[in-house]
Amino acid sequence: MKALKEKILQEGRLIDNHILKVDCFLNHQLDPQMIQAIGNEFASRFADEGITRILTIESSGIAVAIMAGLALGVPVVFARKKKPVTLEEQVYHSEVYSFTKKEQVDIFVSNDFMEHTDRVLIIDDFLARGQAALGLMDIVRQSGASLAGIGIVIEKGFQDGGRILREKGIRLESLAIIESMSCEGIIFSENA
Amino acid sequence: MKALKEKILQEGRLIDNHILKVDCFLNHQLDPQMIQAIGNEFASRFADEGITRILTIESSGIAVAIMAGLALGVPVVFARKKKPVTLEEQVYHSEVYSFTKKEQVDIFVSNDFMEHTDRVLIIDDFLARGQAALGLMDIVRQSGASLAGIGIVIEKGFQDGGRILREKGIRLESLAIIESMSCEGIIFSENA
Repeated sequence: MKALKEKILQEGRLIDNHILKVDCFLNHQLDPQMIQAIGNEFASRFADEGITRILTIESSGIAVAIMAGLALGVPVVFARKKKPVTLEEQVYHSEVYSFTKKEQVDIFVSNDFMEHTDRVLIIDDFLARGQAALGLMDIVRQSGASLAGIGIVIEKGFQDGGRILREKGIRLESLAIIESMSCEGIIFSENA
Repeated sequence: MKALKEKILQEGRLIDNHILKVDCFLNHQLDPQMIQAIGNEFASRFADEGITRILTIESSGIAVAIMAGLALGVPVVFARKKKPVTLEEQVYHSEVYSFTKKEQVDIFVSNDFMEHTDRVLIIDDFLARGQAALGLMDIVRQSGASLAGIGIVIEKGFQDGGRILREKGIRLESLAIIESMSCEGIIFSENA
Protein backbone atom coordinates (compact mmCIF):
# COMPACT_ATOMS: atom_id res chain seq x y z
CA MET A 1 0.00 0.00 0.00
CA LYS A 2 1.85 3.00 -1.38
CA ALA A 3 0.38 5.72 0.84
CA LEU A 4 1.17 3.69 3.95
CA LYS A 5 4.79 3.09 2.94
CA GLU A 6 5.23 6.80 2.25
CA LYS A 7 3.73 7.60 5.65
CA ILE A 8 6.12 5.17 7.35
CA LEU A 9 9.11 6.73 5.59
CA GLN A 10 7.94 10.26 6.41
CA GLU A 11 6.80 9.82 9.99
CA GLY A 12 8.19 6.53 11.31
CA ARG A 13 11.26 6.63 13.52
CA LEU A 14 13.81 3.94 14.22
CA ILE A 15 14.87 3.37 17.80
CA ASP A 16 18.14 1.48 18.27
CA ASN A 17 17.79 0.19 14.69
CA HIS A 18 15.34 -2.55 15.68
CA ILE A 19 12.16 -0.85 16.93
CA LEU A 20 10.04 1.04 14.41
CA LYS A 21 8.09 3.77 16.12
CA VAL A 22 4.94 4.73 14.26
CA ASP A 23 3.08 6.13 17.21
CA CYS A 24 2.45 9.41 15.44
CA PHE A 25 -0.26 7.81 13.28
CA LEU A 26 -0.87 4.18 14.30
CA ASN A 27 0.03 3.23 17.88
CA HIS A 28 -0.53 6.17 20.19
CA GLN A 29 -1.69 9.06 18.06
CA LEU A 30 -4.03 8.01 15.25
CA ASP A 31 -4.35 9.72 11.89
CA PRO A 32 -8.04 9.07 11.13
CA GLN A 33 -7.75 9.58 7.34
CA MET A 34 -4.81 7.18 7.08
CA ILE A 35 -6.49 4.66 9.41
CA GLN A 36 -9.62 4.79 7.26
CA ALA A 37 -7.57 4.26 4.08
CA ILE A 38 -5.95 1.22 5.73
CA GLY A 39 -9.35 -0.15 6.78
CA ASN A 40 -10.69 0.35 3.26
CA GLU A 41 -7.67 -1.46 1.81
CA PHE A 42 -8.31 -4.51 4.01
CA ALA A 43 -12.00 -4.43 3.07
CA SER A 44 -11.11 -4.32 -0.60
CA ARG A 45 -8.57 -7.16 -0.40
CA PHE A 46 -10.95 -9.44 1.52
CA ALA A 47 -14.14 -8.33 -0.27
CA ASP A 48 -14.64 -11.75 -1.90
CA GLU A 49 -14.23 -13.79 1.30
CA GLY A 50 -17.74 -13.53 2.73
CA ILE A 51 -16.46 -12.07 6.02
CA THR A 52 -19.07 -12.00 8.80
CA ARG A 53 -16.91 -10.76 11.69
CA ILE A 54 -13.57 -9.09 12.31
CA LEU A 55 -11.39 -10.09 15.26
CA THR A 56 -8.59 -7.94 16.62
CA ILE A 57 -6.82 -7.40 19.95
CA GLU A 58 -6.74 -4.35 22.19
CA SER A 59 -5.49 -1.68 21.87
CA SER A 60 -3.64 -0.79 18.69
CA GLY A 61 -5.69 -3.04 16.42
CA ILE A 62 -9.03 -1.47 17.27
CA ALA A 63 -8.91 1.69 15.15
CA VAL A 64 -7.89 -0.10 11.96
CA ALA A 65 -10.34 -2.94 12.58
CA ILE A 66 -13.34 -0.66 13.06
CA MET A 67 -12.61 1.12 9.79
CA ALA A 68 -12.42 -2.25 8.01
CA GLY A 69 -15.65 -3.30 9.73
CA LEU A 70 -17.35 -0.11 8.60
CA ALA A 71 -16.30 -0.72 5.00
CA LEU A 72 -17.32 -4.40 5.06
CA GLY A 73 -20.49 -3.81 7.09
CA VAL A 74 -19.65 -6.42 9.73
CA PRO A 75 -19.17 -6.29 13.52
CA VAL A 76 -15.72 -6.06 15.06
CA VAL A 77 -14.67 -7.91 18.21
CA PHE A 78 -11.55 -7.03 20.13
CA ALA A 79 -9.96 -9.64 22.35
CA ARG A 80 -9.47 -8.41 25.89
CA LYS A 81 -6.12 -8.75 27.64
CA LYS A 82 -7.81 -8.78 31.03
CA LYS A 83 -11.06 -10.49 31.78
CA PRO A 84 -13.43 -7.62 32.56
CA VAL A 85 -15.86 -7.95 35.45
CA THR A 86 -18.68 -7.69 32.94
CA LEU A 87 -17.38 -10.65 30.93
CA GLU A 88 -19.19 -13.74 32.01
CA GLU A 89 -17.97 -17.28 32.42
CA GLN A 90 -18.47 -18.36 28.85
CA VAL A 91 -15.32 -17.13 27.15
CA TYR A 92 -12.75 -18.33 24.68
CA HIS A 93 -9.33 -17.97 26.18
CA SER A 94 -5.84 -18.13 24.74
CA GLU A 95 -2.33 -16.98 25.60
CA VAL A 96 0.00 -14.62 23.82
CA TYR A 97 3.69 -14.21 24.59
CA SER A 98 5.11 -10.76 23.96
CA PHE A 99 8.81 -10.85 23.12
CA THR A 100 8.96 -7.05 23.35
CA LYS A 101 7.51 -6.95 26.84
CA LYS A 102 8.89 -10.35 27.85
CA GLU A 103 5.60 -11.41 29.36
CA GLN A 104 2.72 -13.73 28.67
CA VAL A 105 -0.76 -12.25 28.49
CA ASP A 106 -4.09 -14.02 28.56
CA ILE A 107 -6.63 -12.99 25.95
CA PHE A 108 -10.39 -13.40 26.18
CA VAL A 109 -13.33 -13.27 23.78
CA SER A 110 -16.92 -13.80 24.89
CA ASN A 111 -18.62 -16.85 23.41
CA ASP A 112 -21.46 -14.53 22.44
CA PHE A 113 -19.41 -12.84 19.75
CA MET A 114 -17.90 -15.69 17.76
CA GLU A 115 -19.99 -18.51 16.34
CA HIS A 116 -19.24 -21.63 14.35
CA THR A 117 -21.05 -20.15 11.36
CA ASP A 118 -18.75 -17.11 11.28
CA ARG A 119 -16.20 -16.36 8.60
CA VAL A 120 -13.55 -14.36 10.43
CA LEU A 121 -10.97 -11.82 9.33
CA ILE A 122 -8.20 -11.20 11.88
CA ILE A 123 -6.68 -7.72 11.83
CA ASP A 124 -3.71 -6.34 13.73
CA ASP A 125 -1.30 -3.43 13.48
CA PHE A 126 2.04 -5.29 13.59
CA LEU A 127 3.27 -8.77 12.76
CA ALA A 128 6.67 -9.75 14.14
CA ARG A 129 6.95 -13.24 15.65
CA GLY A 130 3.26 -13.92 15.06
CA GLN A 131 2.31 -14.62 18.66
CA ALA A 132 -0.76 -12.38 18.74
CA ALA A 133 -2.01 -13.76 15.41
CA LEU A 134 -1.58 -17.34 16.66
CA GLY A 135 -3.50 -16.52 19.85
CA LEU A 136 -6.36 -14.98 17.88
CA MET A 137 -6.37 -17.96 15.48
CA ASP A 138 -6.65 -20.25 18.49
CA ILE A 139 -9.79 -18.37 19.56
CA VAL A 140 -11.29 -18.66 16.06
CA ARG A 141 -10.53 -22.41 16.16
CA GLN A 142 -12.19 -22.82 19.57
CA SER A 143 -15.35 -21.15 18.29
CA GLY A 144 -15.55 -23.46 15.27
CA ALA A 145 -15.64 -20.46 12.93
CA SER A 146 -13.63 -20.47 9.72
CA LEU A 147 -10.67 -18.17 9.23
CA ALA A 148 -10.78 -16.12 6.03
CA GLY A 149 -7.38 -14.60 6.52
CA ILE A 150 -5.22 -12.15 8.41
CA GLY A 151 -4.72 -8.47 7.60
CA ILE A 152 -1.63 -6.77 9.01
CA VAL A 153 -0.68 -3.12 8.69
CA ILE A 154 3.09 -3.53 9.08
CA GLU A 155 4.90 -6.86 8.84
CA LYS A 156 8.47 -7.12 10.03
CA GLY A 157 9.66 -9.34 7.20
CA PHE A 158 12.97 -10.00 8.95
CA GLN A 159 11.18 -11.81 11.77
CA ASP A 160 9.53 -15.17 11.34
CA GLY A 161 5.81 -14.49 11.99
CA GLY A 162 4.93 -14.06 8.32
CA ARG A 163 6.72 -17.24 7.28
CA ILE A 164 5.04 -19.26 10.05
CA LEU A 165 1.57 -18.09 9.02
CA ARG A 166 2.11 -18.49 5.27
CA GLU A 167 3.48 -22.02 5.75
CA LYS A 168 0.18 -22.88 7.43
CA GLY A 169 -1.55 -21.90 4.19
CA ILE A 170 -3.20 -18.85 5.72
CA ARG A 171 -4.08 -15.93 3.51
CA LEU A 172 -1.94 -13.17 4.97
CA GLU A 173 -2.27 -9.66 3.59
CA SER A 174 0.35 -7.27 4.93
CA LEU A 175 0.04 -3.72 3.66
CA ALA A 176 3.72 -2.99 4.18
CA ILE A 177 6.49 -5.55 4.68
CA ILE A 178 9.74 -4.23 6.07
CA GLU A 179 12.66 -6.20 4.70
CA SER A 180 15.26 -4.44 6.79
CA MET A 181 15.75 -1.38 8.93
CA SER A 182 19.01 0.20 9.95
CA CYS A 183 20.70 3.56 10.24
CA GLU A 184 20.67 3.57 6.44
CA GLY A 185 16.89 3.56 6.45
CA ILE A 186 13.89 1.34 5.96
CA ILE A 187 13.72 -1.04 3.01
CA PHE A 188 10.35 -2.50 2.04
CA SER A 189 9.79 -5.89 0.46
CA GLU A 190 8.52 -5.93 -3.10
CA ASN A 191 5.86 -8.45 -2.02
CA ALA A 192 3.44 -5.94 -0.49
CA MET B 1 -29.10 10.67 20.99
CA LYS B 2 -32.21 8.71 20.13
CA ALA B 3 -30.63 5.88 18.12
CA LEU B 4 -28.15 5.24 20.92
CA LYS B 5 -30.84 5.07 23.60
CA GLU B 6 -32.83 2.64 21.48
CA LYS B 7 -29.74 0.52 21.00
CA ILE B 8 -29.09 0.48 24.75
CA LEU B 9 -32.68 -0.59 25.42
CA GLN B 10 -32.56 -3.25 22.72
CA GLU B 11 -29.11 -4.72 23.30
CA GLY B 12 -27.88 -3.60 26.70
CA ARG B 13 -28.14 -6.00 29.61
CA LEU B 14 -28.27 -5.32 33.30
CA ILE B 15 -26.10 -7.40 35.59
CA ASP B 16 -27.11 -7.44 39.25
CA ASN B 17 -29.07 -4.22 38.62
CA HIS B 18 -25.99 -2.02 38.80
CA ILE B 19 -23.72 -2.92 35.87
CA LEU B 20 -24.91 -2.08 32.37
CA LYS B 21 -23.39 -4.43 29.86
CA VAL B 22 -23.20 -2.96 26.37
CA ASP B 23 -20.39 -5.11 25.12
CA CYS B 24 -22.41 -6.22 22.10
CA PHE B 25 -21.85 -2.86 20.40
CA LEU B 26 -19.53 -0.64 22.45
CA ASN B 27 -17.12 -2.39 24.83
CA HIS B 28 -16.08 -5.72 23.40
CA GLN B 29 -17.91 -6.17 20.13
CA LEU B 30 -18.24 -2.95 18.14
CA ASP B 31 -21.07 -2.05 15.79
CA PRO B 32 -19.22 0.10 13.24
CA GLN B 33 -22.33 1.91 11.93
CA MET B 34 -23.47 2.84 15.44
CA ILE B 35 -19.93 3.83 16.48
CA GLN B 36 -19.69 6.07 13.42
CA ALA B 37 -23.05 7.67 14.21
CA ILE B 38 -21.80 8.35 17.75
CA GLY B 39 -18.56 9.84 16.43
CA ASN B 40 -20.50 12.05 14.02
CA GLU B 41 -22.76 13.22 16.84
CA PHE B 42 -19.75 14.33 18.92
CA ALA B 43 -18.27 16.06 15.88
CA SER B 44 -21.52 17.88 15.29
CA ARG B 45 -21.95 18.98 18.92
CA PHE B 46 -18.37 20.29 19.16
CA ALA B 47 -18.14 21.61 15.60
CA ASP B 48 -17.91 25.25 16.74
CA GLU B 49 -15.14 24.67 19.29
CA GLY B 50 -12.09 24.78 17.02
CA ILE B 51 -10.94 21.34 18.15
CA THR B 52 -7.37 20.47 17.09
CA ARG B 53 -6.94 17.15 18.86
CA ILE B 54 -9.03 14.43 20.50
CA LEU B 55 -7.84 12.66 23.63
CA THR B 56 -9.20 9.33 24.82
CA ILE B 57 -8.01 6.36 26.86
CA GLU B 58 -7.43 2.78 25.82
CA SER B 59 -9.28 0.62 25.01
CA SER B 60 -13.01 1.25 24.80
CA GLY B 61 -12.72 4.94 23.94
CA ILE B 62 -10.63 4.39 20.83
CA ALA B 63 -13.30 3.34 18.34
CA VAL B 64 -15.65 6.21 19.13
CA ALA B 65 -12.79 8.72 19.25
CA ILE B 66 -11.41 7.77 15.83
CA MET B 67 -14.84 8.21 14.25
CA ALA B 68 -15.14 11.66 15.84
CA GLY B 69 -11.61 12.46 14.66
CA LEU B 70 -12.48 11.39 11.14
CA ALA B 71 -15.53 13.64 11.12
CA LEU B 72 -13.66 16.62 12.61
CA GLY B 73 -10.50 16.02 10.57
CA VAL B 74 -8.19 16.06 13.61
CA PRO B 75 -5.74 13.54 15.09
CA VAL B 76 -6.74 11.28 17.97
CA VAL B 77 -4.44 10.39 20.87
CA PHE B 78 -5.19 7.56 23.23
CA ALA B 79 -3.63 7.59 26.68
CA ARG B 80 -1.75 4.40 27.45
CA LYS B 81 -2.35 2.49 30.66
CA LYS B 82 1.12 1.03 30.53
CA LYS B 83 4.18 2.90 29.43
CA PRO B 84 5.20 1.14 26.21
CA VAL B 85 8.86 0.45 25.54
CA THR B 86 8.62 2.72 22.51
CA LEU B 87 7.37 5.63 24.59
CA GLU B 88 10.28 7.85 25.48
CA GLU B 89 11.02 9.74 28.63
CA GLN B 90 9.06 12.87 27.79
CA VAL B 91 5.55 11.93 28.80
CA TYR B 92 2.61 13.43 30.61
CA HIS B 93 1.56 11.12 33.38
CA SER B 94 -1.51 10.93 35.58
CA GLU B 95 -3.34 8.42 37.71
CA VAL B 96 -6.83 6.99 37.43
CA TYR B 97 -8.58 5.02 40.12
CA SER B 98 -11.05 2.43 38.89
CA PHE B 99 -13.84 1.77 41.38
CA THR B 100 -15.01 -1.19 39.27
CA LYS B 101 -11.63 -2.90 39.28
CA LYS B 102 -10.59 -1.47 42.65
CA GLU B 103 -7.17 -0.52 41.36
CA GLN B 104 -5.18 2.54 40.44
CA VAL B 105 -3.75 2.72 36.95
CA ASP B 106 -1.14 5.07 35.59
CA ILE B 107 -1.88 6.74 32.28
CA PHE B 108 0.66 8.16 29.86
CA VAL B 109 0.62 10.48 26.86
CA SER B 110 3.73 11.40 24.91
CA ASN B 111 4.68 15.08 25.02
CA ASP B 112 4.89 14.92 21.23
CA PHE B 113 1.13 14.62 20.87
CA MET B 114 -0.28 17.38 23.04
CA GLU B 115 0.86 20.97 22.75
CA HIS B 116 0.01 24.20 24.54
CA THR B 117 -1.59 25.51 21.35
CA ASP B 118 -4.04 22.58 21.19
CA ARG B 119 -7.76 22.80 21.74
CA VAL B 120 -8.67 19.37 23.06
CA LEU B 121 -11.85 17.33 23.09
CA ILE B 122 -11.82 14.42 25.55
CA ILE B 123 -13.92 11.41 24.55
CA ASP B 124 -14.76 8.27 26.51
CA ASP B 125 -17.33 5.52 26.44
CA PHE B 126 -18.62 5.70 30.04
CA LEU B 127 -18.81 8.31 32.76
CA ALA B 128 -19.51 7.06 36.29
CA ARG B 129 -17.41 8.59 39.06
CA GLY B 130 -15.42 10.68 36.58
CA GLN B 131 -11.99 9.34 37.46
CA ALA B 132 -10.84 8.68 33.89
CA ALA B 133 -12.07 12.09 32.74
CA LEU B 134 -10.23 13.80 35.61
CA GLY B 135 -7.02 11.93 34.74
CA LEU B 136 -7.29 12.95 31.09
CA MET B 137 -8.04 16.56 32.11
CA ASP B 138 -4.91 16.52 34.24
CA ILE B 139 -2.88 15.56 31.16
CA VAL B 140 -4.45 18.37 29.12
CA ARG B 141 -3.59 20.79 31.96
CA GLN B 142 0.04 19.59 32.08
CA SER B 143 0.41 20.19 28.34
CA GLY B 144 -0.89 23.74 28.62
CA ALA B 145 -3.56 23.00 26.01
CA SER B 146 -7.11 24.26 26.46
CA LEU B 147 -9.99 21.90 27.07
CA ALA B 148 -12.95 22.38 24.73
CA GLY B 149 -15.12 19.82 26.49
CA ILE B 150 -15.82 16.20 27.19
CA GLY B 151 -17.92 13.84 25.08
CA ILE B 152 -19.31 10.74 26.79
CA VAL B 153 -21.32 7.97 25.17
CA ILE B 154 -23.16 6.77 28.30
CA GLU B 155 -23.28 8.74 31.54
CA LYS B 156 -24.45 7.02 34.69
CA GLY B 157 -26.50 9.92 35.99
CA PHE B 158 -26.98 8.26 39.36
CA GLN B 159 -23.24 8.48 40.06
CA ASP B 160 -21.46 11.73 40.72
CA GLY B 161 -18.99 12.09 37.82
CA GLY B 162 -21.29 14.26 35.73
CA ARG B 163 -22.07 16.61 38.61
CA ILE B 164 -18.37 16.97 39.50
CA LEU B 165 -17.45 17.89 35.91
CA ARG B 166 -20.39 20.26 35.35
CA GLU B 167 -19.69 22.06 38.62
CA LYS B 168 -16.20 22.78 37.29
CA GLY B 169 -17.86 24.61 34.40
CA ILE B 170 -16.77 22.02 31.85
CA ARG B 171 -18.83 21.53 28.72
CA LEU B 172 -19.95 17.92 29.09
CA GLU B 173 -21.92 16.30 26.30
CA SER B 174 -23.31 12.88 27.23
CA LEU B 175 -25.24 11.18 24.44
CA ALA B 176 -27.29 9.11 26.88
CA ILE B 177 -27.71 9.75 30.60
CA ILE B 178 -29.08 6.87 32.62
CA GLU B 179 -31.16 8.14 35.50
CA SER B 180 -31.76 4.75 37.02
CA MET B 181 -31.53 1.07 36.22
CA SER B 182 -33.24 -1.76 38.00
CA CYS B 183 -35.16 -4.93 37.32
CA GLU B 184 -37.92 -2.66 36.02
CA GLY B 185 -35.66 -1.40 33.27
CA ILE B 186 -33.47 1.50 32.28
CA ILE B 187 -34.74 5.05 32.62
CA PHE B 188 -32.97 7.82 30.74
CA SER B 189 -32.66 11.41 31.87
CA GLU B 190 -34.50 14.00 29.79
CA ASN B 191 -31.30 16.09 29.73
CA ALA B 192 -29.57 14.16 26.94
